[in-house]
Amino acid sequence: MNVENLGCNKSFGGWHKQYSHYSEVLNCTMRFAIYLPPQASSGDKVPALYWLSGLTCTDENFMQKAGAHRIAAELGIAIIAPDTSPRGDDVADDEDYDLGKGAGFYVNATQAPWSRHYRMYDYVLNELPELAESMFPVSDQRSISGHSMGGHGALVLALRNSERYRSVSAFSPISNPVNCPWGKKAFGAYLGKDTASWAEYDASILMREATAFVPALVDQGEADDFLEEQLKPELLEAAAKRSGYPLELNRHEGFDHSYYFIASFIERHLRFHAGHLAR
Amino acid sequence: MNVENLGCNKSFGGWHKQYSHYSEVLNCTMRFAIYLPPQASSGDKVPALYWLSGLTCTDENFMQKAGAHRIAAELGIAIIAPDTSPRGDDVADDEDYDLGKGAGFYVNATQAPWSRHYRMYDYVLNELPELAESMFPVSDQRSISGHSMGGHGALVLALRNSERYRSVSAFSPISNPVNCPWGKKAFGAYLGKDTASWAEYDASILMREATAFVPALVDQGEADDFLEEQLKPELLEAAAKRSGYPLELNRHEGFDHSYYFIASFIERHLRFHAGHLAR
Repeated sequence: MNVENLGCNKSFGGWHKQYSHYSEVLNCTMRFAIYLPPQASSGDKVPALYWLSGLTCTDENFMQKAGAHRIAAELGIAIIAPDTSPRGDDVADDEDYDLGKGAGFYVNATQAPWSRHYRMYDYVLNELPELAESMFPVSDQRSISGHSMGGHGALVLALRNSERYRSVSAFSPISNPVNCPWGKKAFGAYLGKDTASWAEYDASILMREATAFVPALVDQGEADDFLEEQLKPELLEAAAKRSGYPLELNRHEGFDHSYYFIASFIERHLRFHAGHLAR
Repeated sequence: MNVENLGCNKSFGGWHKQYSHYSEVLNCTMRFAIYLPPQASSGDKVPALYWLSGLTCTDENFMQKAGAHRIAAELGIAIIAPDTSPRGDDVADDEDYDLGKGAGFYVNATQAPWSRHYRMYDYVLNELPELAESMFPVSDQRSISGHSMGGHGALVLALRNSERYRSVSAFSPISNPVNCPWGKKAFGAYLGKDTASWAEYDASILMREATAFVPALVDQGEADDFLEEQLKPELLEAAAKRSGYPLELNRHEGFDHSYYFIASFIERHLRFHAGHLAR
């Protein structure tokens, strides 16, 4: 296994570390970051929150801007943040910010030229946790969270794999991608014109049909510029009502799509996950 | 007064705002950021912490990465973060990261070509607080803090203007710039070859001679790559001992020069300043 440490910073008594590794699933070298709380230094395994970032982000945005280390250190939770797409000179890309690199949308692409590398769904579900659980004192008690495109990814991964995640949360998720410009563009490229295949990556469709439940928390800012056209939390809410899904969805007056919103409410999310990871 | 709002984000119930304005002192358009805690929304004046960033930074680094809004919101303190140098196409620059734009060193340059714009000392001491106190519900109860080059700037401003600041703190400051490569290079360019004029911008020299005291808190990571060659906190400590200066200087095992260090200890700094601002 070809894993390289890229950096290491002490943070709130624990350690923030960045790694590169060759991903068999994605056919390229990938980067991820992990925050190991002080409790992991004893060698005891700690539970892990997987964090999926939004469009244009890397492994760094959440680690630097969310203010999450403080609470993770208190609660004894590791945080694992992958990059948002495959990377490298031979990876297909697009000049737009919302397709290609930085915009993997956490799906397994089926269409050329994307299908050779863009398999972020499998990477986050399987390869990354296997690697993390083999390298670090991190247990298989997993929760998952994310922002915007990453909120979509977290919801879809949890909704399709209720046995793998104890809890799921999202900030400002793309709630119904088959029905918004970002989702239509990405799914059309990665999954093709047959929209039937899109449903398995749509949180609102999956939640409406759900029979196995992962406790879910969603926060949404009401001053978010993307709220009406791209995010559509009301459709996720309607889907949860239909299936009786345990979704708590909160709206917050004045908050936008930025990391200032995430930082303002991340403590609540981490405590929510800690409550489920401890069971 | 030509002031333009560039952006506005709700954060922990308060507001992060960015502005540009024409600076008469610096002869160019400048940017700064302010965090207004929820207590400022009532119109009551709140005290202000001025934050000076390090080399290559802008008004954004501290606001995004320090996790300070949470505590400022609790304590009712505004945070005001200027850019680290004059900016603009007609502002003198250097190809190195540690001279010119992003590296103003909080001095008033006396040497061409720098003296036309590089007057960050006067800007932070006078023009910026005058602007902030006229625009926002911010009082003239001021404290000052900073990181690295900004830690140097904060210490120098407080040491030379004990009547203007209630307290001062610094993370990893350049403690004795007349005696380290960063300082010698910048002071040589901005202030000229006559090293006698450098002393008024050297925290260790000023602290050794001090007769008026501003309570001072300094934190330094022991795994900081710049510790021995550039930062030299032991010289600040020796100076404080000589003059009986009220300096608390703490060293922290394993912490480096990054914002992860700042985030880990910013709460302590804000509570320190709040204690002095409340008097």
